[in-house]
Amino acid sequence: MRMIDLIDTKKRGGSLTAEQLHWWITSVAAGTVPDYQTASLLMAIFLRGLDADETMRLTVEMMNSGETIDLASIEGTTADKHSTGGVGDKLSFLVGPLAAACGVPVPMLSGRALGHTGGTLDKLESIPGYRTRLDTGRFIEIVRETGLSIIGQTDELAPADRKLYALRDATATVESIPLIVGSILSKKFAAGPEVLVFDVKCGDGAFLADLDSCRTLGKTLVDVSCRMGRRATAILTDMNAPLGHKVGNALEIDESIDVLRGGDGSDMMEPTFVLAAEMVFLAGAAEDREEARRKVEDALASGRALEVFRKMIEAHGGESNVLDDRSLLPRSRFRRVVKARSGGFVQAIGARAIGLASTRLGAGRERAEDAVSPGAGIEILRKRGDEVAAADPIAVMHADEEERLDAAENDVAAAWRIGPEKPSPTPPVIETIRSDRDEGGNG
Amino acid sequence: MRMIDLIDTKKRGGSLTAEQLHWWITSVAAGTVPDYQTASLLMAIFLRGLDADETMRLTVEMMNSGETIDLASIEGTTADKHSTGGVGDKLSFLVGPLAAACGVPVPMLSGRALGHTGGTLDKLESIPGYRTRLDTGRFIEIVRETGLSIIGQTDELAPADRKLYALRDATATVESIPLIVGSILSKKFAAGPEVLVFDVKCGDGAFLADLDSCRTLGKTLVDVSCRMGRRATAILTDMNAPLGHKVGNALEIDESIDVLRGGDGSDMMEPTFVLAAEMVFLAGAAEDREEARRKVEDALASGRALEVFRKMIEAHGGESNVLDDRSLLPRSRFRRVVKARSGGFVQAIGARAIGLASTRLGAGRERAEDAVSPGAGIEILRKRGDEVAAADPIAVMHADEEERLDAAENDVAAAWRIGPEKPSPTPPVIETIRSDRDEGGNG
Repeated sequence: MRMIDLIDTKKRGGSLTAEQLHWWITSVAAGTVPDYQTASLLMAIFLRGLDADETMRLTVEMMNSGETIDLASIEGTTADKHSTGGVGDKLSFLVGPLAAACGVPVPMLSGRALGHTGGTLDKLESIPGYRTRLDTGRFIEIVRETGLSIIGQTDELAPADRKLYALRDATATVESIPLIVGSILSKKFAAGPEVLVFDVKCGDGAFLADLDSCRTLGKTLVDVSCRMGRRATAILTDMNAPLGHKVGNALEIDESIDVLRGGDGSDMMEPTFVLAAEMVFLAGAAEDREEARRKVEDALASGRALEVFRKMIEAHGGESNVLDDRSLLPRSRFRRVVKARSGGFVQAIGARAIGLASTRLGAGRERAEDAVSPGAGIEILRKRGDEVAAADPIAVMHADEEERLDAAENDVAAAWRIGPEKPSPTPPVIETIRSDRDEGGNG
Repeated sequence: MRMIDLIDTKKRGGSLTAEQLHWWITSVAAGTVPDYQTASLLMAIFLRGLDADETMRLTVEMMNSGETIDLASIEGTTADKHSTGGVGDKLSFLVGPLAAACGVPVPMLSGRALGHTGGTLDKLESIPGYRTRLDTGRFIEIVRETGLSIIGQTDELAPADRKLYALRDATATVESIPLIVGSILSKKFAAGPEVLVFDVKCGDGAFLADLDSCRTLGKTLVDVSCRMGRRATAILTDMNAPLGHKVGNALEIDESIDVLRGGDGSDMMEPTFVLAAEMVFLAGAAEDREEARRKVEDALASGRALEVFRKMIEAHGGESNVLDDRSLLPRSRFRRVVKARSGGFVQAIGARAIGLASTRLGAGRERAEDAVSPGAGIEILRKRGDEVAAADPIAVMHADEEERLDAAENDVAAAWRIGPEKPSPTPPVIETIRSDRDEGGNG
């Protein structure tokens, strides 16, 4: 087989055969095809697309390029939630414990901060002692014991995806829906859960800003998952403003604990309940979605979700007393209040701007090799729709160096768009994309 | 400047700035940009195109990546002819001497065989002693002395084009009109002639088969040349059948000598006269195109073109007695007659099939590092429109190994499509694309 024939076919808009995709991905994993030919094919795929069969086949080949995790020893129907990434997105720390508290085992593999979005692993590592690198045996054991484990993806899972992603990142071919789907699902399929609920973030702070692309992404994620024998739903959620009131690693753990203890979850609660209830319903732990929702809300109100989170932290070597005394979480050395530039109603808070400012404060990474500062980030004092007077405090920045506060201050203040009229509310959950066979069913 | 921004701009269909193209081509020449990023940009250019300004700028940057030849010491207006490549295309050995015999100095840089097309240099090297590698000083001297010199392109001319071409060849991005134009013209501009006449081959045996693409290529070549201060015309000529009666290195030199001595040039004569007359007219050696045509025909009939060719061969160290005794040209060890599979009229002779068979016989190259066999090739005994009986000889194959004859025989026979009706003739010259300012002008 010759790589040039694959490139030539795709550049003309043709379809790659199963044999061609197998050969390509095998060659990528083995390092036997030059990067320049793979880069050329990636651009042809970016501009010409992949059909449903090609997307499915690419995903399976990337999954097969490495190890797969066997979850058979976990009793019950396993479920995972995957977010396409946003700003202040701490929903894993709410949804995971809620689903587990309803009897659904949740083996969750997560990633790190990059660009303007934070990373679940970096947030968890702000809990003193929490270990995100465990072997597969221990990972499964923790899920069996506590119902939930959140660890980092290992290098053995879908290694072809890692190579392709590095090339896509260097060749402006990241935002291709079939390539995104292949990247997400090859890892999810290798990791093994039977139920997959996708939180597809839409808006300025998300990976994809326009609703049509998000719909296509959600639908493709659900379709390919179902063809691979998974039960799956995609929930499109709003990412035009940061979620909740805190952005940053320890700051988001702090807010998550507060919510699990019954605190105000503001705009996070509706997506949290919808995502967790969908996992519970698809995993067969409720008769219908209404029952699933009631169970999930009860798991929060009863404190059972908090207990799952506590046990999971302890099983990962973390100090669970942070749940009772949040002042034990790491804090940055410096804080500075940001004031409103004018008076009126908050029309919008730019999610991408807040994400980038938070990265600049030390909470995220500009390059994969950067370290993060656990205490850095931004507290959001005034949300969309709130009334403010000029010079009212609207945010508090946290950083370990004062220069970082200086560097971020203008951008943070400018993220608040303030106008004379109170804006009408926007729904936090935009729409739900289900597989046809899950309509009214019960797994 | 970051390569990823160039790729991102082009993949979205935007235009690259002069600064970006300068930086990219400079980086390609210096080897400071990774091949995978250049490959990705090439595919984005292939699928999104380049506008007129970008094409012009790319060409100039590739020209500036290496040396340029100063032809100022040559008296008169210099002219070159460039063919996009065909099968049996020996027109350089006719057009060059004809234009030179009309007083137009012709400094011609040529290439080698690759794929199904032959190479002017390989053909010339079948003349015992002929040297195609000369330094620039000697090249100019020969043009001054004899009116014509044909040598190989040096490595110092447009080195960025050579690097890009190698990548395009490996990534299925060769047939992109702006990239073809950049590749052809960067070398032509570096080589210096003031008049450029392009022989754009159209059809099955050409690089581009469809007329629309050929028209676009011809128009772009003329437009960019004129913007660079050259006088230029593109002539679209038919390449659905091999040109003339001989295909192969020494075989084509043999046929060229025959034509220069007054022999039958069949379908080659009209494009030869049109191309040479256009050079003579654009170079200002005739008042109008009619006079140019008369001068060119007279240069052939009087034997002056043959004398130019003789002097040029001698100046390059070649044995010019081949002009008087063509049996001194190299011959292959084996010959085999190919017979018609049925009777009727020859409807078509597949040019690409003949080109590929000729390569298989040893006349061409499958890879750039292959050697060619000077005597190998195909004699065409029956042309389109000729009547044949079944088993009549239609071709003679020449090769140095009998196995090559075996390997090519079926394909050669199958190249002749024979049917019951005599086909209507096809014009050898399809159309002429001139610059607006050359309409009725006189350089």
